[in-house]
Amino acid sequence: MRSSQARVRVARVTKDGGRTHRADTLAVEEPLEIRVNGTRLAVTMRTPVHDFSLAVGFALSEGIINSADDVVSVRYCQKDQGPKGLHSVGRLTVTPETAADLVDPVSLGSYAGSSNTHDTSDNVVDITLAPHVPDPTVAVQRQLVVNSSCGLCGRQSLDEVHQNGCYPLDARSEFTLDEDTVMSLPDQLSESQKVFAKTGGLHGAGIYDIEIGEMLVVREDVGRHNAVDKVLGWALMEGLLPLSRQVLVTSSRASFELVQKAAMAGLPMLVAVSAPSSLAVELAKESGMTLVGFTRGHRCVIYAGEDRIIPPANQDSEVTA
Amino acid sequence: MRSSQARVRVARVTKDGGRTHRADTLAVEEPLEIRVNGTRLAVTMRTPVHDFSLAVGFALSEGIINSADDVVSVRYCQKDQGPKGLHSVGRLTVTPETAADLVDPVSLGSYAGSSNTHDTSDNVVDITLAPHVPDPTVAVQRQLVVNSSCGLCGRQSLDEVHQNGCYPLDARSEFTLDEDTVMSLPDQLSESQKVFAKTGGLHGAGIYDIEIGEMLVVREDVGRHNAVDKVLGWALMEGLLPLSRQVLVTSSRASFELVQKAAMAGLPMLVAVSAPSSLAVELAKESGMTLVGFTRGHRCVIYAGEDRIIPPANQDSEVTA
Repeated sequence: MRSSQARVRVARVTKDGGRTHRADTLAVEEPLEIRVNGTRLAVTMRTPVHDFSLAVGFALSEGIINSADDVVSVRYCQKDQGPKGLHSVGRLTVTPETAADLVDPVSLGSYAGSSNTHDTSDNVVDITLAPHVPDPTVAVQRQLVVNSSCGLCGRQSLDEVHQNGCYPLDARSEFTLDEDTVMSLPDQLSESQKVFAKTGGLHGAGIYDIEIGEMLVVREDVGRHNAVDKVLGWALMEGLLPLSRQVLVTSSRASFELVQKAAMAGLPMLVAVSAPSSLAVELAKESGMTLVGFTRGHRCVIYAGEDRIIPPANQDSEVTA
Repeated sequence: MRSSQARVRVARVTKDGGRTHRADTLAVEEPLEIRVNGTRLAVTMRTPVHDFSLAVGFALSEGIINSADDVVSVRYCQKDQGPKGLHSVGRLTVTPETAADLVDPVSLGSYAGSSNTHDTSDNVVDITLAPHVPDPTVAVQRQLVVNSSCGLCGRQSLDEVHQNGCYPLDARSEFTLDEDTVMSLPDQLSESQKVFAKTGGLHGAGIYDIEIGEMLVVREDVGRHNAVDKVLGWALMEGLLPLSRQVLVTSSRASFELVQKAAMAGLPMLVAVSAPSSLAVELAKESGMTLVGFTRGHRCVIYAGEDRIIPPANQDSEVTA
């Protein structure tokens, strides 16, 4: 049985209280090999839920696909035995896991008690691309790198995103969000992070919809990149791209790669709990994306695209007018 | 000029205080291509200081090298123009940057105000291996993966570390540390994290020596793996491996990969500020490593190798006896 949590016996130590032995809950970490048309694209250490979203989101981030129409099927591979456990539901070939992946937006941990049986072949996911999608070339494989799909300098990295991205953020004039909502997003995210509450060991990512005024989906993973790939992969499979009326919320720092992933999905705003890097800010500015960091309930710092965030004063004056 | 920090104009927002515009300090993030004998091994997003330590530590983690004797030179490559700026100092061919890397154990940020000029070719580092070291084969390149050097399941990942590691942790009986010291390690680490204090955006890693009773080296990076690679690479170049009387301290979570890196350097103890994953605990147990998480000034949780950590009561009784 595959679970996102594991129990282990630990010794808790406190300065005054000495040692107590008890069972503790940990976040599960396992490797996942992501294949495209049968060829290995990457292996990532991940928390084994929502693997299909993760694989699809990763392929999106790499510029290989950018809509659900680009994907014929997503499935687990059994080593040397071809695909297994498949049944086709409409366009997307799904296993019971994908079905859960697709229908349950905030279901992390739902596999823990399920009756699905898994083995290590569930650590290999293959995406079959639609005939019209160019097979990832040697060039793509060459550029594929540890921790990043970037080039050799910041400038090249930025250029690559612009070249590979297919959703230019040109709808900025339409998109605004009030300050208070922005500052509340990390709390909304953490309220949905079921496993983090138990393990303290998972990053979270969520997609907030400004029309509905709530999170569309929240995903968790031991890796912050994976958590973001999972929500973006879910959105792609749901046919929601480009996410031009949504905000990506992450419990982590805002690295270059997270801004890159947001840009690939057409997101106009990224709200992070912690600090951004220099290159993250640069890419956000060049992409016309709003980037907010150090976002807590009572404060935040806007690094790029400030005009999308409306102060309470303006809201009041708008109301008064 | 290469720096680990950058300044950018931001808008600070607080619930009561409104918006204030000011310059803010960010951690610099840039890609680094790591080559071995001229062949690309990986590209990682890193904070551009201590690049040579990072490259060497990464090669150690991958099982390619395990002592300073395995390395003939470490140098920056100029694209299509061969190596540049080299001068040889003893065994290790160094540039001014390596020199600083080697002599200044806790010097992060020291490049910021230096007069060294850099360009984008400083984002490619090549390690030349000694003739006796097997050239990384196709097999190594094949196994090289995004975020990890692991296999396809947790079991394989664990086996791979045992196969590639050359420093078995068999000296456990000799190694103990008192509880209070363990709980103080994250504070000792953060006191040395110069750039974090300004940017809030960097992970830290340090090597604590139990004989000397202090940190031998502290490094920072936007990536937590990189911070660990930097301290391990420094230790390798200093001829300190295996680190059998030292503790690895990290400001982050303890993932499988961080335990793996510690194992590759022969470290008997890893102390993390945040949570470990399931596979991290498994590897620590199998390696005979002590793994401590959620380490704050007044508490910690011991996940593996509890016998190496001595409670105050035992210490007192020893003193009394």
